[in-house]
Amino acid sequence: MAHNADTTKAGAAVVERLKRLELTGELIAEFAGTMVLILFGVGVVAQVVAAGVGDHDSIAWAWGIGVALGVYVAGRITGAHLNPAVTLAFATFRGFPWAKVVPYSLAQTAGAFVGALLVRWNYTEVLNMTDPEHTLKTQIVFSTLPGNGTLPVGMWGGFRDQIIGTAILMFVLYALSDSHNLAPSANLSPVVIGLLIVAIGMAWGADAGYAINPARDFGPRLASFLTGYSGAWRDQYGDLYFWVPVIGPLIGGLTGAGLYQLMIARFLPEPEPDIEDAGRV
Amino acid sequence: MAHNADTTKAGAAVVERLKRLELTGELIAEFAGTMVLILFGVGVVAQVVAAGVGDHDSIAWAWGIGVALGVYVAGRITGAHLNPAVTLAFATFRGFPWAKVVPYSLAQTAGAFVGALLVRWNYTEVLNMTDPEHTLKTQIVFSTLPGNGTLPVGMWGGFRDQIIGTAILMFVLYALSDSHNLAPSANLSPVVIGLLIVAIGMAWGADAGYAINPARDFGPRLASFLTGYSGAWRDQYGDLYFWVPVIGPLIGGLTGAGLYQLMIARFLPEPEPDIEDAGRV
Amino acid sequence: MAHNADTTKAGAAVVERLKRLELTGELIAEFAGTMVLILFGVGVVAQVVAAGVGDHDSIAWAWGIGVALGVYVAGRITGAHLNPAVTLAFATFRGFPWAKVVPYSLAQTAGAFVGALLVRWNYTEVLNMTDPEHTLKTQIVFSTLPGNGTLPVGMWGGFRDQIIGTAILMFVLYALSDSHNLAPSANLSPVVIGLLIVAIGMAWGADAGYAINPARDFGPRLASFLTGYSGAWRDQYGDLYFWVPVIGPLIGGLTGAGLYQLMIARFLPEPEPDIEDAGRV
Amino acid sequence: MAHNADTTKAGAAVVERLKRLELTGELIAEFAGTMVLILFGVGVVAQVVAAGVGDHDSIAWAWGIGVALGVYVAGRITGAHLNPAVTLAFATFRGFPWAKVVPYSLAQTAGAFVGALLVRWNYTEVLNMTDPEHTLKTQIVFSTLPGNGTLPVGMWGGFRDQIIGTAILMFVLYALSDSHNLAPSANLSPVVIGLLIVAIGMAWGADAGYAINPARDFGPRLASFLTGYSGAWRDQYGDLYFWVPVIGPLIGGLTGAGLYQLMIARFLPEPEPDIEDAGRV
Repeated sequence: MAHNADTTKAGAAVVERLKRLELTGELIAEFAGTMVLILFGVGVVAQVVAAGVGDHDSIAWAWGIGVALGVYVAGRITGAHLNPAVTLAFATFRGFPWAKVVPYSLAQTAGAFVGALLVRWNYTEVLNMTDPEHTLKTQIVFSTLPGNGTLPVGMWGGFRDQIIGTAILMFVLYALSDSHNLAPSANLSPVVIGLLIVAIGMAWGADAGYAINPARDFGPRLASFLTGYSGAWRDQYGDLYFWVPVIGPLIGGLTGAGLYQLMIARFLPEPEPDIEDAGRV
Repeated sequence: MAHNADTTKAGAAVVERLKRLELTGELIAEFAGTMVLILFGVGVVAQVVAAGVGDHDSIAWAWGIGVALGVYVAGRITGAHLNPAVTLAFATFRGFPWAKVVPYSLAQTAGAFVGALLVRWNYTEVLNMTDPEHTLKTQIVFSTLPGNGTLPVGMWGGFRDQIIGTAILMFVLYALSDSHNLAPSANLSPVVIGLLIVAIGMAWGADAGYAINPARDFGPRLASFLTGYSGAWRDQYGDLYFWVPVIGPLIGGLTGAGLYQLMIARFLPEPEPDIEDAGRV
Repeated sequence: MAHNADTTKAGAAVVERLKRLELTGELIAEFAGTMVLILFGVGVVAQVVAAGVGDHDSIAWAWGIGVALGVYVAGRITGAHLNPAVTLAFATFRGFPWAKVVPYSLAQTAGAFVGALLVRWNYTEVLNMTDPEHTLKTQIVFSTLPGNGTLPVGMWGGFRDQIIGTAILMFVLYALSDSHNLAPSANLSPVVIGLLIVAIGMAWGADAGYAINPARDFGPRLASFLTGYSGAWRDQYGDLYFWVPVIGPLIGGLTGAGLYQLMIARFLPEPEPDIEDAGRV
Repeated sequence: MAHNADTTKAGAAVVERLKRLELTGELIAEFAGTMVLILFGVGVVAQVVAAGVGDHDSIAWAWGIGVALGVYVAGRITGAHLNPAVTLAFATFRGFPWAKVVPYSLAQTAGAFVGALLVRWNYTEVLNMTDPEHTLKTQIVFSTLPGNGTLPVGMWGGFRDQIIGTAILMFVLYALSDSHNLAPSANLSPVVIGLLIVAIGMAWGADAGYAINPARDFGPRLASFLTGYSGAWRDQYGDLYFWVPVIGPLIGGLTGAGLYQLMIARFLPEPEPDIEDAGRV
């Protein structure tokens, strides 16, 4: 069969269009998955802090389940990064295309922004009741503060915490998503990933509110700033703080993923065939 | 082979009878599944609010597990809607027969009604102890109120909350039950659906008690009205409120399901064959 | 091939011996599984009530997980009844041999007795600290009381509660263990059964302490009676109470199982082949 | 084909090197898995006790999930012992090579040591705030005390508790990891093992803080001693206590594993083929 120049050109255009459509789907999936995560995560802090319903365990559980559900939403289309620190680590160590790192990160941040706006809207009355001046007291509903605004942890303590916490996240996440290791099958990985977030909230949440995700922190911070929280960019000491839960997780994520590759990945045996077959996240 | 008019008529009658029997089974399954959901959901609020045993986290967990168990009861027969908002969304977007929408909804409401009567009966003593006048204080055991009867949320705030909350429910439920997406297999979808309800209770439960299901709210409301709660139809401000957790969820369910179709469903790749085979809810 | 009388006799003797060995294994499994259940269930109440560590949610979770773990211990050998009410219902509706009902029930009660003795021993110091007279205050660690010893529920209220509560248990347990319905596969049924117990504890635990199992209540009651709790057989009103959590569950179990057969089992479609194959509890 | 002496020698050297590499991988995996376990387990006690965020249920949940995640990290390479009591029991009853018992135990203890150092570092500020003198009050963040430092349980009570508690752990762990019994498949065993730890924390945690693992207790104890906790080796009565959560678990682990072999393992039927095939932990 003969292909003349025109056909080739037309074909290339089709491929290009398909690729763009595919990327559109991916970005919407990352947007939607991160939005779901925030609808639960920021939602539960609003319910506990502003409405006074529930306690710290509720926060840990609903954040964790929210992440699991976000992964179920976006999982088939993108693998559900939902976190720029995850996207960056996948580009660095697992061949995720570098060209998509920024678009993914922006889509995640946009999803977190819209999710936070919905929480802001729905909990207007109780936020006004508990904190009519919109101070840091309920700023913490949306984004994190060193020592959760009350414990004696400073900006650099928060930075240290965000690096370690995100390193733990990525080290374990790499294990859970590595088909050569014991990745859960039956499409139940998202639930175990959710449990990972629950445990981080319970054990690594006191020093800096376990943002461990730049999109999770920056998107809602912006949403709160635009809706009456003028002090959103600084911590209780007056320091410019917003960069800590952005840069800390990016460094920590690379550290944790790198350590997993170094310590675990290269010692893994070849996977058994029947395990390879199962549908994994 | 020859078919005369009589044979055809007889065959049609048999088919008709089988169809009716099938529908009977479906309605009983929806009745039983919703009854189980309410036995746990209304039961736990009775235990916490009237008997003083447990806290808000108990409510979130037992509601969620109750939904999971209701799905296990009805799942094979009907797919376990257990919620008119779900039934309506499945008719609108996934080809569920419109003729069954009203019968299903009535069966669900009847199941919720009977489940609530059993809770009412079993907790008679503690309800009398805590609230001898049967006021809104324990009305909330059975059906919802804006701001759970105490927070500064009004009727329209509750309406907004019910639309958003049910939209979140349906958006994620559509993901969890979509075999082209990452639907859990090994017959464990009901557990993940239960976790979804747990997280909604923890994050979206303060403004209007997360009815997110017309049958769940109306059936028990009627049961309480018929057993001594004369103020069951109105909220703490005296407004006629019972329609809010009926209409709100219907609108929200359609919204969430529609958004899932728009944002996620059309970008999903063809499912992999070995995943298609697994027994899904 | 010819079989003379001697060979036949010898063969029959071998079969008899094998059968007896098999029954021995089954009784030990039921003993061990119920012991595990009690080690966690009675253990957690000791920790919360006598040592003051944890709360009502801890009790619900550890009881539920304890049941799941007991099922994992005995599951392959007997299917893990661990409860005379379950054994009776399986004999009545699912062809379990009637001749084994009493031996199973005794083995379960013996396992519960030994498990409770171990808890009694390990928590000697804190039981002495909290309740040096060994009154009903810590009797409740081992066996149940109407209204958990403090709420205004009497003996007959407890009886009603035990019938309804065990009916709910068996109705849902029949669904979870019915391979024609949505029984979880991947050997994860025990976890879902555990969740069922968690939710019963949270929603049906205030009126009579959710014994819902004659062995669970009678074995530990006897263990406490023999180790210093002279008032173990009566409730806080002086009524002979020990029979309530024995007879109530037996009646309730039959009721719940019968209702499942009537309402759900007969409407279930033929199971799909690939689902039948999976290893189920 | 001919093999001369040189080839044989070279081959033996290669095999030896491969074996050493394999052992290196195993030791690193045990190190990493136990470190992860401690990052969550010691982390959550720091968050609850030193930072005042969360309660006893948080401790039970995060310890349990931490163990599950540690198993996911090391599971494919070593089966994830993460506990010298487990390693000893596997050598005694399941053919694990005796020569690896000490190396594994050292790797586990080293992992626990490093994990505890990271927690010590991250929670410096809140530890200083709550307990500036570094007394037993926050020593308990790192290692265990009889009666958790406050209940009237002495050294020998703690010893009894550690034997019984670890016997329960190993009895159930042997069931969960026995492919002839109902071991969970779909690579979800780690989650059920995590639930086992959650329930032990809720039901067997008041007498001696449920170390049930010599590495978990000794590694962090050493880490705290080297970072300012000079009283780390003794309990609140002044007794040398550090040996109790080392020797107790070793004895208890052997007891529990032996009882499982005696009571359950020898009565198990041959496994069904399709269950054998599934990828188990």
